[in-house]
Amino acid sequence: MPKKNVPSPRKNIPDPTIARLPRYLRSFAEFVHNHQAVLSSKELAAISGINPAQVRKDLAYFGQFGQRGIGYDVKTLDGKMREILGLHKAWRIGLVGAGNLGTALLQYGGFAKAGFKIEAAFDVDPSKVGWELEGVRIWGTPAIRQVVREKKIEIGITAAPASQAQRVAEDLVDGGIRAILNFAPCALSVPKSVIVRGVDLASELEHLTYFLEISSKSEK
Amino acid sequence: MPKKNVPSPRKNIPDPTIARLPRYLRSFAEFVHNHQAVLSSKELAAISGINPAQVRKDLAYFGQFGQRGIGYDVKTLDGKMREILGLHKAWRIGLVGAGNLGTALLQYGGFAKAGFKIEAAFDVDPSKVGWELEGVRIWGTPAIRQVVREKKIEIGITAAPASQAQRVAEDLVDGGIRAILNFAPCALSVPKSVIVRGVDLASELEHLTYFLEISSKSEK
Repeated sequence: MPKKNVPSPRKNIPDPTIARLPRYLRSFAEFVHNHQAVLSSKELAAISGINPAQVRKDLAYFGQFGQRGIGYDVKTLDGKMREILGLHKAWRIGLVGAGNLGTALLQYGGFAKAGFKIEAAFDVDPSKVGWELEGVRIWGTPAIRQVVREKKIEIGITAAPASQAQRVAEDLVDGGIRAILNFAPCALSVPKSVIVRGVDLASELEHLTYFLEISSKSEK
Repeated sequence: MPKKNVPSPRKNIPDPTIARLPRYLRSFAEFVHNHQAVLSSKELAAISGINPAQVRKDLAYFGQFGQRGIGYDVKTLDGKMREILGLHKAWRIGLVGAGNLGTALLQYGGFAKAGFKIEAAFDVDPSKVGWELEGVRIWGTPAIRQVVREKKIEIGITAAPASQAQRVAEDLVDGGIRAILNFAPCALSVPKSVIVRGVDLASELEHLTYFLEISSKSEK
């Protein structure tokens, strides 16, 4: 997961802790679904797959939500974490690239579940322009700047080929975007004020092979 | 990035360090491309976007590759990291789900670049079975166990809908898979010996909004 131009977080919350918060949020959904109002760090650990000591350490960064011997109030914890992750407001997203990956992202159940809404999609292919995909209008890439500005889009997702990613990133920035989630397997060069997070799918596989390699060796 | 059933790494290398190794590998490619044989931690920091102190700290886990005042030998460092990540061998991958996401993964340039090869694809849709996509044969999901066993596939990628992910994961495990990269927005329950890494695309966006929220507040 390459990250660049990321401002220092408040209160020095470590990046790995922040990265675990969405996992806690997904776990809360299960407690809410089961009508359980209070949870222990042990229960949260079991559902999230994170060890109990780490769970307690992570939660401690966000104040004293828990009561010894009773546990944590699910609703309070959920609300506090959503606030910390900036999820108490609706972020406006623009997607560049309406190919297979872009279409998969438009169809991806996880975004809607988490409350994200893609407002506009863009593609270089003129035959796609003007159509709707999953209820989202597709614009030509020359319209990126204008549409981003008019629709007040704050986050861009680049699902374009690596050869086009830098160019569309610049158009997104010119339109006033504040953050980019980059799926293209390349680094993006943008002003320091723009936050870029790269999803490097190959690195996810490499992380797996690291653990496979370890377990192969320990079996010998 | 939810992770489960991950064995403890050797030498207690922290997970965030492991997660940064692919970024270093991508950076090495640029040095090799520029015919630069020796690099400093500062240069590696500049290209990878990771701060120099962190780079030196990370590299220290992998032994003494650097010489003070001279720098690190790119080829040695690259080879050592590939070995640590288990990339000195070819891993056999099976992909379940040949929809938009599956097709995007088959087309994804980053996998081939990193040396990964998808050996077989599987889909529930009978009309897709028997065809090839990007040169990879598509099998029906009932064939998962047999094909995984016959082709000695070690890693499974689940790009199936959440409602089917658990079932195909079980078939992959029955076939003898050792690790799963899960794109479905759900947790998978598998035996402890199987390593699961989940790519939670919504959590990537939530990580971005966290930093956006911070920068909004610091501007006020």
